[in-house]
Amino acid sequence: MQFASDNTSAAHPEVLAALTRANEDYAPAYGADRYTAELTERLRELFQAPDALVYPMTSGTATNAMLLAAMSPPWGVIYCHEDAHIEVDERGAVTLFAGGAKLKPLPSQDGRIDPAQLAQTVTVEAARKDIHAMPPACVSITNITENGVLYTLAQISEIASATRLPLHIDGARLANALAACGASPWEMTREATALSLGGTKFGAFGAEAAVLFDPALQEAFESQRMRGGQNLSKARFVSAQMLALLKDDLWIRLGAHANAMAARLAEGLVERGAELAYPVDGNMIFARLPLARHITAWERGAAYHPMEDIATASAQTPVLARFVASWSTTEAEVDALLAALD
Amino acid sequence: MQFASDNTSAAHPEVLAALTRANEDYAPAYGADRYTAELTERLRELFQAPDALVYPMTSGTATNAMLLAAMSPPWGVIYCHEDAHIEVDERGAVTLFAGGAKLKPLPSQDGRIDPAQLAQTVTVEAARKDIHAMPPACVSITNITENGVLYTLAQISEIASATRLPLHIDGARLANALAACGASPWEMTREATALSLGGTKFGAFGAEAAVLFDPALQEAFESQRMRGGQNLSKARFVSAQMLALLKDDLWIRLGAHANAMAARLAEGLVERGAELAYPVDGNMIFARLPLARHITAWERGAAYHPMEDIATASAQTPVLARFVASWSTTEAEVDALLAALD
Amino acid sequence: MQFASDNTSAAHPEVLAALTRANEDYAPAYGADRYTAELTERLRELFQAPDALVYPMTSGTATNAMLLAAMSPPWGVIYCHEDAHIEVDERGAVTLFAGGAKLKPLPSQDGRIDPAQLAQTVTVEAARKDIHAMPPACVSITNITENGVLYTLAQISEIASATRLPLHIDGARLANALAACGASPWEMTREATALSLGGTKFGAFGAEAAVLFDPALQEAFESQRMRGGQNLSKARFVSAQMLALLKDDLWIRLGAHANAMAARLAEGLVERGAELAYPVDGNMIFARLPLARHITAWERGAAYHPMEDIATASAQTPVLARFVASWSTTEAEVDALLAALD
Amino acid sequence: MQFASDNTSAAHPEVLAALTRANEDYAPAYGADRYTAELTERLRELFQAPDALVYPMTSGTATNAMLLAAMSPPWGVIYCHEDAHIEVDERGAVTLFAGGAKLKPLPSQDGRIDPAQLAQTVTVEAARKDIHAMPPACVSITNITENGVLYTLAQISEIASATRLPLHIDGARLANALAACGASPWEMTREATALSLGGTKFGAFGAEAAVLFDPALQEAFESQRMRGGQNLSKARFVSAQMLALLKDDLWIRLGAHANAMAARLAEGLVERGAELAYPVDGNMIFARLPLARHITAWERGAAYHPMEDIATASAQTPVLARFVASWSTTEAEVDALLAALD
Repeated sequence: MQFASDNTSAAHPEVLAALTRANEDYAPAYGADRYTAELTERLRELFQAPDALVYPMTSGTATNAMLLAAMSPPWGVIYCHEDAHIEVDERGAVTLFAGGAKLKPLPSQDGRIDPAQLAQTVTVEAARKDIHAMPPACVSITNITENGVLYTLAQISEIASATRLPLHIDGARLANALAACGASPWEMTREATALSLGGTKFGAFGAEAAVLFDPALQEAFESQRMRGGQNLSKARFVSAQMLALLKDDLWIRLGAHANAMAARLAEGLVERGAELAYPVDGNMIFARLPLARHITAWERGAAYHPMEDIATASAQTPVLARFVASWSTTEAEVDALLAALD
Repeated sequence: MQFASDNTSAAHPEVLAALTRANEDYAPAYGADRYTAELTERLRELFQAPDALVYPMTSGTATNAMLLAAMSPPWGVIYCHEDAHIEVDERGAVTLFAGGAKLKPLPSQDGRIDPAQLAQTVTVEAARKDIHAMPPACVSITNITENGVLYTLAQISEIASATRLPLHIDGARLANALAACGASPWEMTREATALSLGGTKFGAFGAEAAVLFDPALQEAFESQRMRGGQNLSKARFVSAQMLALLKDDLWIRLGAHANAMAARLAEGLVERGAELAYPVDGNMIFARLPLARHITAWERGAAYHPMEDIATASAQTPVLARFVASWSTTEAEVDALLAALD
Repeated sequence: MQFASDNTSAAHPEVLAALTRANEDYAPAYGADRYTAELTERLRELFQAPDALVYPMTSGTATNAMLLAAMSPPWGVIYCHEDAHIEVDERGAVTLFAGGAKLKPLPSQDGRIDPAQLAQTVTVEAARKDIHAMPPACVSITNITENGVLYTLAQISEIASATRLPLHIDGARLANALAACGASPWEMTREATALSLGGTKFGAFGAEAAVLFDPALQEAFESQRMRGGQNLSKARFVSAQMLALLKDDLWIRLGAHANAMAARLAEGLVERGAELAYPVDGNMIFARLPLARHITAWERGAAYHPMEDIATASAQTPVLARFVASWSTTEAEVDALLAALD
Repeated sequence: MQFASDNTSAAHPEVLAALTRANEDYAPAYGADRYTAELTERLRELFQAPDALVYPMTSGTATNAMLLAAMSPPWGVIYCHEDAHIEVDERGAVTLFAGGAKLKPLPSQDGRIDPAQLAQTVTVEAARKDIHAMPPACVSITNITENGVLYTLAQISEIASATRLPLHIDGARLANALAACGASPWEMTREATALSLGGTKFGAFGAEAAVLFDPALQEAFESQRMRGGQNLSKARFVSAQMLALLKDDLWIRLGAHANAMAARLAEGLVERGAELAYPVDGNMIFARLPLARHITAWERGAAYHPMEDIATASAQTPVLARFVASWSTTEAEVDALLAALD
């Protein structure tokens, strides 16, 4: 009954198999190997971006921080959702790499940036044109979001056209987003300047990729990547993991599976009286249940995180918790969790 | 004939086997898993440091930068050798994380920091006690060094006692150092405050460990690690790799093998008229040969790096090159290289 | 009709006289002079803080940034009002010096931080105790605020006791605050850990002081001050200016005068139909008037700033503008401005 | 007998007079005043640089750091002399503002950068073209240097043509350099990309100017200046000081006077057996005298700094000390110092 995060799952057998195959003989270090070349080629095709630059990475936090640092001057403003991973879960990584740039978190009701609010905020701040103020630099969205909701293609377009700023997509769960709406990788990223493409959350041992759709970011990004220790000597082993996920759309199939398991779980939770904080578009559920039920489930071995301070929670008010399904979640696990909540 | 670096080698079969075994079921993220716990326990034993804190990492550059950033204020001076990896090969990683601290590279003839020179430099700089000046913060040595020479236990003690500053050891090739002198891990690190323990160069897919002998560094180090994207969600897979290397002293045996291969190669090179720039204590050889011989070897498929700009090298002056043996180097490969140079 | 800012005024004659007197003979550099010693003594008395450390400075922005950088680790959160100078007018100075710390701007209706909201925000963030999150570090308030409203002594106490975090006061207009409520400097700052004490806005050529009520901040602050170029060689000339302002409470008398001029202006504005956005507690007025009236006044030579983008303002909706009275504002100037608005 | 530094002197009467005249009425803040406009015009003429951008500043350290941060990426190398103020006296200011860039100090015998050594160092480092390495960014020289020696026009040209890197000149004592060789301001700076123009050391209360000969640096420099608190609200009072120094070449006449006083002192010191560490080109003398004579002089009230740790100096070896003459040094003071040394 492991629903704490999609990063508690193991690596997919295909990823292990690919790593095993790649573990032969010598290969040039620092990404000059054939696996990384193939990864570049594969992602250029997928994203219909023949000039895109691709870098294997071991950390989504690092990928986000280094890309955004390449997209903003040290005095720029990076707009994001108030619940964005870069704002709440990276201990200031972006600001470190970007040398002082500011994350501007935007609140919303539905877990996504509101394009109209974004447009207005950027317009006001851009209009200052005053050396005292930090100028707008770029926008970052996560899809699916940290709240488990999807930006549809139309919504991404709205975000992109709300300003003239470059767009970064945190795709730690891009596979879940693609599976959720059936869009192609190209459709979902064509308005983006850079992408953090996750792998770890859906089946890798530890593999991500940075994709620069704008090659002009090369020097800044590669410099930041080097400074942050992500210019990997044995890059081939990360690239090989990513290739395994991309092959025959394995990642999207795994994303679809995780989404389906989340849907099954959500249905069961609602049947048990849970209130959903957000629609369940992907593989994450935010649901409120009485504290007693959570405690019962935890005592029975269910693993998932409350999103509120339990110590101060009351018995009367339902407590918000997050449930995450992964590529390896089974129907039996979902059903066991539901049973544990009964 | 792959002698470009020890990071061009594959992962050791035992590492792959361990990773395969570890790839089962769910595990808590961010190092709360049993592999990381076991790694901590194992390294505490090895280093006779029951309070040491241990962190699996995927990058030696990041490990160095984050440890040193925890050991120096943003205005401190970090003393190192002029050929240290942190000085010449990390594009300023230490300075980024440390918020402006200065690396002070010390020159030397023999590829190691000279304790007397270190003592004098630190004494003079410490005596200034002037807010204009940057105060001494810590010392970093690499063992074996980037020049392939060993700090013996006596030499490490001399470095440590040359100042009262905390000592960091970059152990990207600690296994080679241990094999070279027969010292125990504890003997080699007992004067250190922190250690970057390599794994990638001797058999891992991509695994290192940060070891904090001084637990007071915890908050600063963990903060830097988080900001740099090295708080790994699937930490267990890195820890499992390190455990495989540590088991039955595999790492040291692999280091000894690489050292032996380098010795064999050095002997052959000297027989062929090469001048060694440094004694060959470990697995790296710095040797001068006529440019024509290098070119012949490269044309015959030998892979290793010149340490000078070939474009401006003369036919008369021998050209310095670096040859690195790894855990997977065979006698046949050494002999093939020597033949290619004939 | 100069109401653009209190920093458009000249220096007070007493400040010039003091500077002239101080301009004799040689003096030790970098604050080892008798003027700086006297300034330290004087401020220790005023603030009843015998251990306080005092530093003459030439910039309020630098003073804020360096003090806050000494009060927060690079990964800390600094709470402030959303209209705080440090948030909106310093192009990220705090984040630069603090090495990545985050300003957390808090919104409010009345131009001040709401203690209850502060308490709740800090409680939630402090409860995370998760390495992913940035921990609360300190609180910064400005008195009088950038919106021209006063924190009373009771309100300051509420802010201070809302959390256990250290408190920084930006006192760019502390004289106006003191004059507004009649409190003593000690009363107004006794809960503060550090103070940015302005001088430039009420009569200096360019003089501020940093006051560290907590001497433990010394090394960090002095280091930041040196790195930012505020360890002034001819510090005595800045200290002499501050001493002139402090003598016989000149600063508070000047603050009271500026406040009185603002009150006179506010009354006239209201009589002319202006809506005040905030109560006029000090020397600043935020008032809405029809755009046509602003244009008329500007055409007649009135100098003050709109707070909205004029280009997109409508003729129907009143436009917000800021009017600032200074130590040198006269009744005649106020009346001339009011006439220009008729 | 004040020879500790040229920053222990008072402000020149003309500077005070100019400040007094400027202290009238209101003026726009942040450099939009007529004094700053006039300063820009005047310096553009002096340096024959019609596109140059000029900024009044209150700190040489800040000016250096902000200019160099605009001239180097966060991963660049800034070449300077090992005794440069930016390397030894600014506690890492450059690195802070430049976000991690490295100062590369070059040793020399004669107190200046050796062009041949500079050329070779930069050539080697530029040839690496490796993301691991920090690429060369710019060169900074100080004229006259911190060792009191002059770069002649020919020597500046040699430095400039040794590389293709942009050149920064730290002109904290540019007046002394100009007086020493009779060159025009234009001749001395025509190869520079940016200049830190001092004022404080030769007669201002506290005034410097940043001069950007390359207007492309504008956004980066202005951003850094704002972040460092040097976008001065009452900029006019700094500009007025600079204008007073520039009027009728007052600064150069004051520089010539200080140089003459240093020459007189140097002659007297040599007559008394002192060894000069460097030729006395400007207003600074580095001379070795027996410790006993220093002590005698200090006991008699002479103020100047030893350049070695007195605590560990021996009676036998002469001790190096620095003597600095300023605009206000008189022949009588020089003679009194010489007498004190007898």
